[in-house]
Amino acid sequence: MRKKIRVVQFGVGPIGASIARLMREKASLEIAGAIDCDPAKAGRDLGEVAGAPDVPWGVPISARAPAALAGTIDVVMHSTTSSLPAVMDELLGCIGAGCCVVSTCEELSYPLRKHPELAAKLDAAAKEEGVALVGTGVNPGFVMDKLVLVLSAAAQRVDFAKAVRIVDASKRRLPLQKKIGAGMTPDEFRQQVAAGVIKHHGLPESVAMVADGLGFRIEDIAETIEPVIAAETVKTQFLEVAPGQVAGVHQVARGMAGGEEKIFMELQMYVGAKHPGDSVELRGEPNLSLTIPGGTHGDLATAAIAVNAIPAVLAAPAGLRTMRDLPVSFFPPGN
Amino acid sequence: MRKKIRVVQFGVGPIGASIARLMREKASLEIAGAIDCDPAKAGRDLGEVAGAPDVPWGVPISARAPAALAGTIDVVMHSTTSSLPAVMDELLGCIGAGCCVVSTCEELSYPLRKHPELAAKLDAAAKEEGVALVGTGVNPGFVMDKLVLVLSAAAQRVDFAKAVRIVDASKRRLPLQKKIGAGMTPDEFRQQVAAGVIKHHGLPESVAMVADGLGFRIEDIAETIEPVIAAETVKTQFLEVAPGQVAGVHQVARGMAGGEEKIFMELQMYVGAKHPGDSVELRGEPNLSLTIPGGTHGDLATAAIAVNAIPAVLAAPAGLRTMRDLPVSFFPPGN
Repeated sequence: MRKKIRVVQFGVGPIGASIARLMREKASLEIAGAIDCDPAKAGRDLGEVAGAPDVPWGVPISARAPAALAGTIDVVMHSTTSSLPAVMDELLGCIGAGCCVVSTCEELSYPLRKHPELAAKLDAAAKEEGVALVGTGVNPGFVMDKLVLVLSAAAQRVDFAKAVRIVDASKRRLPLQKKIGAGMTPDEFRQQVAAGVIKHHGLPESVAMVADGLGFRIEDIAETIEPVIAAETVKTQFLEVAPGQVAGVHQVARGMAGGEEKIFMELQMYVGAKHPGDSVELRGEPNLSLTIPGGTHGDLATAAIAVNAIPAVLAAPAGLRTMRDLPVSFFPPGN
Repeated sequence: MRKKIRVVQFGVGPIGASIARLMREKASLEIAGAIDCDPAKAGRDLGEVAGAPDVPWGVPISARAPAALAGTIDVVMHSTTSSLPAVMDELLGCIGAGCCVVSTCEELSYPLRKHPELAAKLDAAAKEEGVALVGTGVNPGFVMDKLVLVLSAAAQRVDFAKAVRIVDASKRRLPLQKKIGAGMTPDEFRQQVAAGVIKHHGLPESVAMVADGLGFRIEDIAETIEPVIAAETVKTQFLEVAPGQVAGVHQVARGMAGGEEKIFMELQMYVGAKHPGDSVELRGEPNLSLTIPGGTHGDLATAAIAVNAIPAVLAAPAGLRTMRDLPVSFFPPGN
């Protein structure tokens, strides 16, 4: 019998819970522990907190990482927050315990431009311990970066790259609808943007990954966040947006080189979006485009991509890896 | 100054010529030699035979591989024929000379099912020499296998995979139009199929790669080749197809497990195809689909993918690799 891969779930919020439930379906994985700093979760069963149908799992959530990482753990699935500085200690703790790490921290997906010192520190620590770590998810990590680079494999020359993701937030969970400002006035929205509350993280990381992959020498990455204003009433399960109110966010990041726009990435995430979908366009020789009609479901796909990355991160050379380096595909459940 | 990657072009037919011209655009590559067994090409300049605009390149084509591989060569770009048994000696010669190999040999793209002994022999020889080799191209190698596996990274569960490629052969070169039987009677077409002349190589390889990647235990891969019959007159630059005559091929490969169809791959390549394009569909959780409207240009993309694979094959662990393992994206020209 082949030895199972022993995993620990670090962070049991909505995404961490989704990752844990998916890992439970893989016979080749053994969930050996869980970590969450929330006192309301500590000591409870991971399966129960994750909303699994087959509780209890017999996996208690620990408030303290070192206790949960004390055994022989192959991979930590890390899903706490978006900011790389905020999770450095958590990541270094996992690495120091000799674990590979797959994290949904958006800023870890491609930290080489915004946080080069932190990236170097993680890379050195991971090489020292002989483990690999990667930040991933659907966006950043897949539709606006990995997929762009995969399509570029068919190109003889690339002059310009574009990725557009349009998400209908109507069917998503309430926290997400709130997070994109649905139902706010435009003024409230702008205040929340200024306060750093409304913001999808990861577009500059995707721009940087694509730029480095395509060999574009980007000098500047410019980002804008604007509201999408509802033209008609939109009702969701949770809230109602009146005409003139905010339906969601319209976020754009541009990679500029020599005054020229080389990369354009656009995220529209709002309730009532008419034509949801993901698309990629490359101009060059030849022109190439790709669409995922309806788009890639954010919650399902982020958990999927994180779990599917496990075999690739275990097989990768030690150090800080990015989705640019890793050949990730579906991780069969095994038996 | 960084050392250039020294490459040799092995095979200077239409695809090899296209690869050589593209390699010439990459400042980080040095084309150090060329090999072709055709006496009409031996001794001539590679750039001239490849139809390059900036001839001569000062790279003579050698009829004998050992002579061309005598220097320090990093990568051989191999593009001679579709059959793995037929190219074994060529590949082993390149490996024995200490070179990594990127080949457009269709049967090398995933030889583990049809030619396991040859695959093991190549893998052992490559590991012995500390080099890697891979078979690739647009199909097999990209649209019907790699792209399916990349999309599967966003899936929590995959039950069934489908890839469809529809190519309008009207704009392609005459040998290709002939090769797919355009202008033949249905009887002539069937005779040519029976004689093994009309056949796109690589569908079973794509099915096998996808099956192994998705964890499907395929017992059987069934392949059919049928003519596409023209319903109306189709004129191309080179020939005319009358109604009732053959416009091209319709080829299907199915991967079966326990009597159930798990993988369906369909290639339609004919003159006058109305809706050319590549598409991938995964059924599972969630359902996912992807389309490349207009499709990926066969000749341009095969050369692109082969050349773009150079950095990945140089970075890969020694041995026989497949596109399943390699993170391939655009290879920037450098400076």
